[in-house]
Amino acid sequence: MDDESVIAKGLVERIGIEGSVLTHKPTGKDKYVVETPMKDHNIAVKLVLDALQDAEHGVIKSTDEIAAVGHRVLHAGEKYIESCLVTEDVKKVVRECFDLGPLHNPANLIGIEAVEAAMPGKPNVAVWDTAFGGTMEPKAYLYAIPREYYEKYGVRRYGFHGTSHSFVSKETIKFANLDPKTAKVIVCHLGNGASISASVGGKCVDTSMGLTPLEGLIMGTRSGDLDPAILEFLCNHENLTISEMLNILNKKSGVLGMSGGISSDFRDLNAAANDGNEIAKVTLEAYAYRVAKYIGAYTAAMNGVDAITFTAGVGENAAWLRPMVAKYLGYLGVELDEAASEKACGVEGIISTPESKVKLCVIPTNEELAIARETLALVK
Amino acid sequence: MDDESVIAKGLVERIGIEGSVLTHKPTGKDKYVVETPMKDHNIAVKLVLDALQDAEHGVIKSTDEIAAVGHRVLHAGEKYIESCLVTEDVKKVVRECFDLGPLHNPANLIGIEAVEAAMPGKPNVAVWDTAFGGTMEPKAYLYAIPREYYEKYGVRRYGFHGTSHSFVSKETIKFANLDPKTAKVIVCHLGNGASISASVGGKCVDTSMGLTPLEGLIMGTRSGDLDPAILEFLCNHENLTISEMLNILNKKSGVLGMSGGISSDFRDLNAAANDGNEIAKVTLEAYAYRVAKYIGAYTAAMNGVDAITFTAGVGENAAWLRPMVAKYLGYLGVELDEAASEKACGVEGIISTPESKVKLCVIPTNEELAIARETLALVK
Repeated sequence: MDDESVIAKGLVERIGIEGSVLTHKPTGKDKYVVETPMKDHNIAVKLVLDALQDAEHGVIKSTDEIAAVGHRVLHAGEKYIESCLVTEDVKKVVRECFDLGPLHNPANLIGIEAVEAAMPGKPNVAVWDTAFGGTMEPKAYLYAIPREYYEKYGVRRYGFHGTSHSFVSKETIKFANLDPKTAKVIVCHLGNGASISASVGGKCVDTSMGLTPLEGLIMGTRSGDLDPAILEFLCNHENLTISEMLNILNKKSGVLGMSGGISSDFRDLNAAANDGNEIAKVTLEAYAYRVAKYIGAYTAAMNGVDAITFTAGVGENAAWLRPMVAKYLGYLGVELDEAASEKACGVEGIISTPESKVKLCVIPTNEELAIARETLALVK
Repeated sequence: MDDESVIAKGLVERIGIEGSVLTHKPTGKDKYVVETPMKDHNIAVKLVLDALQDAEHGVIKSTDEIAAVGHRVLHAGEKYIESCLVTEDVKKVVRECFDLGPLHNPANLIGIEAVEAAMPGKPNVAVWDTAFGGTMEPKAYLYAIPREYYEKYGVRRYGFHGTSHSFVSKETIKFANLDPKTAKVIVCHLGNGASISASVGGKCVDTSMGLTPLEGLIMGTRSGDLDPAILEFLCNHENLTISEMLNILNKKSGVLGMSGGISSDFRDLNAAANDGNEIAKVTLEAYAYRVAKYIGAYTAAMNGVDAITFTAGVGENAAWLRPMVAKYLGYLGVELDEAASEKACGVEGIISTPESKVKLCVIPTNEELAIARETLALVK
């Protein structure tokens, strides 16, 4: 962590199903792939530790060199708005929020417990994806539904991609040389999932994902905002259950559905649009238009904006998208520097002109580094 | 119509159920109330015509003095984006759109046919509530759901309150002395139902109600925007059908639900907030915040804004709301003139300072006059 360099990165896939595979990539060395049955996360974590200590492919001699382990945990409900050392109480919160994060929190807990089993006594840190949204005021996080649903079940806006929004908003303040106490920053995290946040002085005031990661921007396969009455209309017309409907809104909608099935990958859609496909063009226009409207809305939420940053897969790399968004923002004094924008792909860059009243930036997100920093801060 | 004065206004309530009542109010004369069973709309229309011709309370001698009848019709799908003379084809469209406007279109058709029966050969004009939204581009009206739902069922944003938005946006251009061809106007139609529109040169570019009048702003009893996944979450937790859920979102949500049941009437909520009720305060803050975010979003949609107008019950009368919205808009150069705003209740008024870069207006809506003008224009 002294120089924040990556010594290895890796990934375990298909745990508990056929074709389990571990990929380990030490910096400056060859990739090391282990294909072996892994019936659960305990075995997977053991194999990760083995790979890290492997005589040929490893990067450490023993687990003694590991000071702490950071975990990305989805949901803390309203319990924690900052990262924390994992204790029994913290694990209880992870468990209590299974209901709010049914796909992620159970897996996150398994991961924590597997590391605890493999390295007893080693500090674990939970870095919550909902923490950044925890500073929102009630006017931003309450829905206009019967209040009992908030009180009984915690139905409110939480926001997600919090680790990324937090990291990128802070990096924007440094990179664009803004006042860390008062800077008004909008971060557009545009990947296959997509969300947008508004923060003042690094504190979130609003963000587009809500109770779940379905709300907000148009995404790869997710609808984002929708007239809620459409769910009933389509359930009735297509004879669907509400769960089947939600599955369609999560997995078959977004630019994939809107384009009539062309692709959920923005590179494919851009290629199709460049080839003259009108539906692909309209899909990308609608996508950019939604981003621009959220930027407008969040500028009102903060009564101004100092910087707008693009991050994540599409945000960092799709230079074609930026003029499509910037063209709506002239009234804010936004001036895109098209040449700078073309160059800033996958790297940090200011992509507005020196005269622009709002700084436009590209800042690659780095959730792993954010988690490592939070972890170090808590065990130091 | 020479001087656009109202010679009588009236209302028929409880048609087909116990307690049917007609209220007829000739200008400058006493109110005339007829309580008599009315089993259907044919009888109701006959009684309206009788009242208009009544020896003592009437305003005309015979129906020969009626040149034409204007009807507010909810939904024309994508078939008509302008008012039209009612023909068999037009009635077919009203019928085809029963599915999109199940509560309104059948009643609208009954009304038209009752007038046809009572006054054969008299021209009828349909003024569509969806017509104003008909000029939106696909980027604004398409949802990010599988395209087949648009193609098969017409699932898209239509917008409602169109007669009001059209009337008030045009009145704003006149009243604020803007260029009728290029003026960028945002109309906040804030009543028990509420919606907001953006128009350039009088043509709608976006509006907040969608496939149905549920989407968008927080309303008296309607939720407006919501994470669509909340519907599944609450159906599961409260053991509700999707139809029961929609009923809650339409009738028990909005400021009524959000305030824990205080009231759907903004006067009650404002009184409660003034008495120190914190939940009423948060509810109104959230309401104003949503309006401000839409203003921000629509300013981006048009790349600027020349005038923002408040209309309908709350918009015309709730002077307390306007500073709560205007405080977010300083970055646009908006300056509210608080004294002018206090005075402009139920009457036209410019409520921004002379220095304000955006004109803020109050313009009372008048759907009846708008319908009469459209009707006259088509039969002249």
